[in-house]
Amino acid sequence: MSGSVGIVTTEYAEFDTELQLESGRLLGPIRLAYETYGALNADRSNVILVTHAWTGDAHAAGRYAPEDRKPGWWDDMIGPGKVLDTERYFVICSNVIGSCKGSTGPASTNPRTGRPYNLSFPVVMVRDMVRAQKMLLERLGIDSLVTVIGGSMGAMQALEWGILYPDAVRSIIPIAGTGRTSPMAIALNAVARQAIFNDPLWKKGNYKPEHPPADGFALARAMGHISFLSDASMHLKFGRRFSARDGLFDFFGQYEVERYLEYNGGNFVGRFDTNSFLYLAKSLDLYDVAWNFDSLEEALGLLRCPSLWFAFTSDWLYPPNQTEEVVAVLESLGKPVEYRLIDSDYGHDSFLVEPDKFTPYVVEFLDRLAG
Amino acid sequence: MSGSVGIVTTEYAEFDTELQLESGRLLGPIRLAYETYGALNADRSNVILVTHAWTGDAHAAGRYAPEDRKPGWWDDMIGPGKVLDTERYFVICSNVIGSCKGSTGPASTNPRTGRPYNLSFPVVMVRDMVRAQKMLLERLGIDSLVTVIGGSMGAMQALEWGILYPDAVRSIIPIAGTGRTSPMAIALNAVARQAIFNDPLWKKGNYKPEHPPADGFALARAMGHISFLSDASMHLKFGRRFSARDGLFDFFGQYEVERYLEYNGGNFVGRFDTNSFLYLAKSLDLYDVAWNFDSLEEALGLLRCPSLWFAFTSDWLYPPNQTEEVVAVLESLGKPVEYRLIDSDYGHDSFLVEPDKFTPYVVEFLDRLAG
Repeated sequence: MSGSVGIVTTEYAEFDTELQLESGRLLGPIRLAYETYGALNADRSNVILVTHAWTGDAHAAGRYAPEDRKPGWWDDMIGPGKVLDTERYFVICSNVIGSCKGSTGPASTNPRTGRPYNLSFPVVMVRDMVRAQKMLLERLGIDSLVTVIGGSMGAMQALEWGILYPDAVRSIIPIAGTGRTSPMAIALNAVARQAIFNDPLWKKGNYKPEHPPADGFALARAMGHISFLSDASMHLKFGRRFSARDGLFDFFGQYEVERYLEYNGGNFVGRFDTNSFLYLAKSLDLYDVAWNFDSLEEALGLLRCPSLWFAFTSDWLYPPNQTEEVVAVLESLGKPVEYRLIDSDYGHDSFLVEPDKFTPYVVEFLDRLAG
Repeated sequence: MSGSVGIVTTEYAEFDTELQLESGRLLGPIRLAYETYGALNADRSNVILVTHAWTGDAHAAGRYAPEDRKPGWWDDMIGPGKVLDTERYFVICSNVIGSCKGSTGPASTNPRTGRPYNLSFPVVMVRDMVRAQKMLLERLGIDSLVTVIGGSMGAMQALEWGILYPDAVRSIIPIAGTGRTSPMAIALNAVARQAIFNDPLWKKGNYKPEHPPADGFALARAMGHISFLSDASMHLKFGRRFSARDGLFDFFGQYEVERYLEYNGGNFVGRFDTNSFLYLAKSLDLYDVAWNFDSLEEALGLLRCPSLWFAFTSDWLYPPNQTEEVVAVLESLGKPVEYRLIDSDYGHDSFLVEPDKFTPYVVEFLDRLAG
């Protein structure tokens, strides 16, 4: 790892067109937030698209201001001399429709009513997010990507790019993803959802932004948080330590892991829109690469580029066998596919916590593709 | 498997004494619900104690009335000719203090105030539950047990019996247990707890029994429910099937797994007391066999009888490695210990769903002990 991309700015692309969604509904106008790092080369052939997870955003690297405490969410990966080397690549990170991080989502103004969409926002699929991103890349004059790389929901976007736009992608790198969301993952989203529905402040989505359903939303986030971790990572971080401030036999006494989840859930409320969280959870639930195809084979048959897949041993949200299912089909179809199972204790979050464990394979893969 | 124990009745033992709890607090008078199946032999040497899980009860076998739709929770295991053969053994299933199923718990009347304990009920540990059960067995004139057998929280009770009363148990059979509750399990209980705390009807435990915090409690149960299942069992039961009544792109549309969790959570509200659920969750969180000992070795060193342990491959709540940790220490101490890892897709609930997979080992173990 090496330098930072420095000070960055989020940019916004506005599209007056309406996008026909998988549901049949139309969404427009559309705004997408994105950031870019590095420089586009003369033949526009050095572009990498980074796709983010559920509550992620376009701010993948650098800082908005020197005093920012934290850089972008994948700053370990993106910068001069880093894995996604900005001295070589022009890296774009695009937010998704449905999000609240600068793109059109349920908190945006519905042009037909002049009021926020809230629950009148249409349900979007990951495929819809990728179609909107394609509009962005066309706007930027880019018709070919070195790779699309992302973890979790970002992995889903990478795969959708590969099958929707096989002429536009020269490779994809899905990390900690799945070919279709499992009933276990849906169940976890279901209880998170219900925690919000149970909060009277949610008001069927019609809360005021300054009065979100904080208790329900914090709880929903805490539930999600558990699924991103692992038994092993919690042992490492908290063990069975009891909060020093509480009595072990107090009814309201808390273990450290409990206090941590509560604190982080509460913290999250100010950083994300509740309805957006719900809509993106729905997008995750609906994810199935075989959607609108006859079979997984037919869908994956459209992928033409090499793909590099990573799964993590301790990931129980999208466990390795789900990536392996997709990889096996790709292999049976004779596609150029590579798979690495990474030994990590950090559960689903491993792609954020321990990039060093898989990045050497990314570098080698990209170098090999470049020939 | 063979016959049924037939029509049964729950019995109640009342104790005027006060029990000193691990917390230092006193609890009394104490009432314990229990059931018995089979007949006590002349030298009182044929007794098996069955211990139940979190929301279980004393009704382990038979029916209260011929028209009962369901028999007791472990009816597959208990009866004439069954694994715990009531033609041979006198089987006792005891409820626990803290429960709402006929024993002294938070919904019981506090003799000092004449009102329900609610949150003035003391936090109890599994060890306290076992001490109360010992009082019950003394009352029944039983000073020696063929075995103590139970799953989940029942496994914890079995182990506590072994180390607290080594002279009273001739074997123990802990199933799907753990030596100490992991931070992951605590985290899952924490979010379930918070779902109840978030419900305004909970009123810090002072709800009226006829107006429980139904939404929060149903959600808490749904969360627990997820942890009792597995990805594989949900695939078998629900896959990614969407509710036939809902539209796939409806914001409130549900997958079958989601509908199932909601239905079962709602159903549970009428069958269990919310505060009791919370207190028992606390007991589970606090569980650590090494509590008040210097080490796991010191605690397990007190166990003198043979023990037979079962874990299930798909159990992610108390995964096999947690049982294996205990078994390894017992082996290192030279204790007579046997361990079977059972291949089952049904997660933590396997001990209820697929008893056939482990019962042959139980029969063989008990026969061998009987010599």
